[in-house]
Amino acid sequence: MSRPKNDTFLRALLRQPVDYTPVWLMRQAGRYLPEYCETRKRAGSFLNLCKNPQLACEVTLQPLARFELDAAILFSDILTVPDAMGLGLYFADGEGPKFERPLREEWVIRDLTAPDPNVHLRYVMDAVVEIRRALNNSIPLIGFSGSPWTLACYMVEGGSSSDYRTVKTMLYNRPDLMHHILDVTTTAVTDYLNAQIESGAQAVMIFDSWGGALSHAAYREFSLAYMQRIVAGLKREQDGERVPCIVFTKGGGQWLEAIADIGCDAIGLDWTTDLGEARRRVGDRVALQGNFDPVALFADPEKVAAEACRVVDSYGSGTGHVFNLGHGINQFTPPENVRALVDAVHKHSRRGYSTP
Amino acid sequence: MSRPKNDTFLRALLRQPVDYTPVWLMRQAGRYLPEYCETRKRAGSFLNLCKNPQLACEVTLQPLARFELDAAILFSDILTVPDAMGLGLYFADGEGPKFERPLREEWVIRDLTAPDPNVHLRYVMDAVVEIRRALNNSIPLIGFSGSPWTLACYMVEGGSSSDYRTVKTMLYNRPDLMHHILDVTTTAVTDYLNAQIESGAQAVMIFDSWGGALSHAAYREFSLAYMQRIVAGLKREQDGERVPCIVFTKGGGQWLEAIADIGCDAIGLDWTTDLGEARRRVGDRVALQGNFDPVALFADPEKVAAEACRVVDSYGSGTGHVFNLGHGINQFTPPENVRALVDAVHKHSRRGYSTP
Repeated sequence: MSRPKNDTFLRALLRQPVDYTPVWLMRQAGRYLPEYCETRKRAGSFLNLCKNPQLACEVTLQPLARFELDAAILFSDILTVPDAMGLGLYFADGEGPKFERPLREEWVIRDLTAPDPNVHLRYVMDAVVEIRRALNNSIPLIGFSGSPWTLACYMVEGGSSSDYRTVKTMLYNRPDLMHHILDVTTTAVTDYLNAQIESGAQAVMIFDSWGGALSHAAYREFSLAYMQRIVAGLKREQDGERVPCIVFTKGGGQWLEAIADIGCDAIGLDWTTDLGEARRRVGDRVALQGNFDPVALFADPEKVAAEACRVVDSYGSGTGHVFNLGHGINQFTPPENVRALVDAVHKHSRRGYSTP
Repeated sequence: MSRPKNDTFLRALLRQPVDYTPVWLMRQAGRYLPEYCETRKRAGSFLNLCKNPQLACEVTLQPLARFELDAAILFSDILTVPDAMGLGLYFADGEGPKFERPLREEWVIRDLTAPDPNVHLRYVMDAVVEIRRALNNSIPLIGFSGSPWTLACYMVEGGSSSDYRTVKTMLYNRPDLMHHILDVTTTAVTDYLNAQIESGAQAVMIFDSWGGALSHAAYREFSLAYMQRIVAGLKREQDGERVPCIVFTKGGGQWLEAIADIGCDAIGLDWTTDLGEARRRVGDRVALQGNFDPVALFADPEKVAAEACRVVDSYGSGTGHVFNLGHGINQFTPPENVRALVDAVHKHSRRGYSTP
């Protein structure tokens, strides 16, 4: 298998020349699309959708049929890994994800082991294979995982949290236990991402959604250090092609220099960071992905397009920018505004590149 | 009236020599104290507590009886200003603050006027006078207000929000309307803070709780520019004493240089920013206040003390640091841990100052 026909996304991540700024959107396959809601209804539940490779493939492709996106991302959930570790993932109506057996007892934590992704997360690998087949090498497929810290937040809290009180109390009171959870989870995530790469993922992204809840000091010790271990343990080449790795810490705009140092190819940025300033700070060490405010997609299409052009311009000219939102797309987003966004990025950015 | 007997807090804000690092805690008068819950019960509701100067004074003093705090802060709510503007503040059980008449219609927004704080917010000024009398010049009293952007979030959303969808849609779609709301609110906040200063507040703080939800560009245009106007319009001297002004944008750690430029005396920092790095970035232009993770108060007292010492050390030696949390104290915080925190800051920081 060679590079996909449209490899703009991969080239931008590797800071190779491109003709325009590639664009994809976090959670591009999701509830804002009526066809997604239809498939999900048919699946019976969100988890069934994740666990059925055919349906996961179907929803992965849906946004590509509507918009000129430059990458597909595996449809799955970041909590499949702790689920495979035996915590019992379920979704309570309107309450978000929960675990039946959150990590609270020391003996349970000491018993934690990393699952074999090709056994316990086989359905994810099957989805990757299925999606690659369906994409037929048109655009690249992104695999992903939650970061160890982000997964640990859910694993210890037992679900979402507004203040991370339980997990942070463990962090401050029992750093040894916290490190044990993170250590096992790091092995699990590394194996999981490598299995995705072996199954066909052409780039991978680590979502550190809750790294920004940590103090400056704790972030380095409890989140970044483990992402560094993952990046070091990743297969960076598959079938003769480089597999780029993106690290995204939401709320991590102050820590870009440190993130760039862990060996990833690109950094995801939320909308609080100016792309131009970020570029000056990290130099040519990494590419940057982001960072349109997802709520700006609620403005009228011409305002959406104008804001998209502002974001493109804030990066400046030259390669190394993958356009994205600064966070997942909101479920109430009008799909026609997504089209306005994608088209504006393509059209506007072509001006910034010298085409032969 | 001269300076309070313990003026360490004021001296640190003005970067004058001190013997130790002063400490106060955001929301230090609050639900984590059983005596506060008792008074609130007696008041019948949170709003009654805010609107009754005697009771507001009573709860303001409660934490001072327990801990060696170096400043008192007026007990009130940031939403008293929009309430005085006629929006009808109320508190639904377990749901946080709400407005009966959120700002949605253009003609309502165009009709908005700044209230006279000495008439419509008389109860706040009476509380300031009452608290100053009770403090008897022992420690300084801090007055405060929400920032125009933060108030506008509540005014347009009609309450708290997880994504600020309504107010940000207005910002992107109708910047003219948004600017009108912010313009009127800026006048209201300036008048309100000046009335507090005239009533006896010895320092003031602007809480920009939701500034961190804005993009890098929108923050400057829709939040910082208005705080700059407020700072420029504040009475900076009262009874021959300088009245320092603190600006706190939660999640604003990337924007410290720009905040330092608006003319405030100090910047509040949440726990994601390293105090030492912040100090290097802002130089000697402003003092820094913060930035202990409030959730670290759930660890055992000796762990709390150790983390407090780490934060004190991260600032380094010399004046210009006011110890505080990076956000309001959590309602489930054990009061004995607050004592461990305050005592550790005082004891540990005395070593860092050369006492004669």
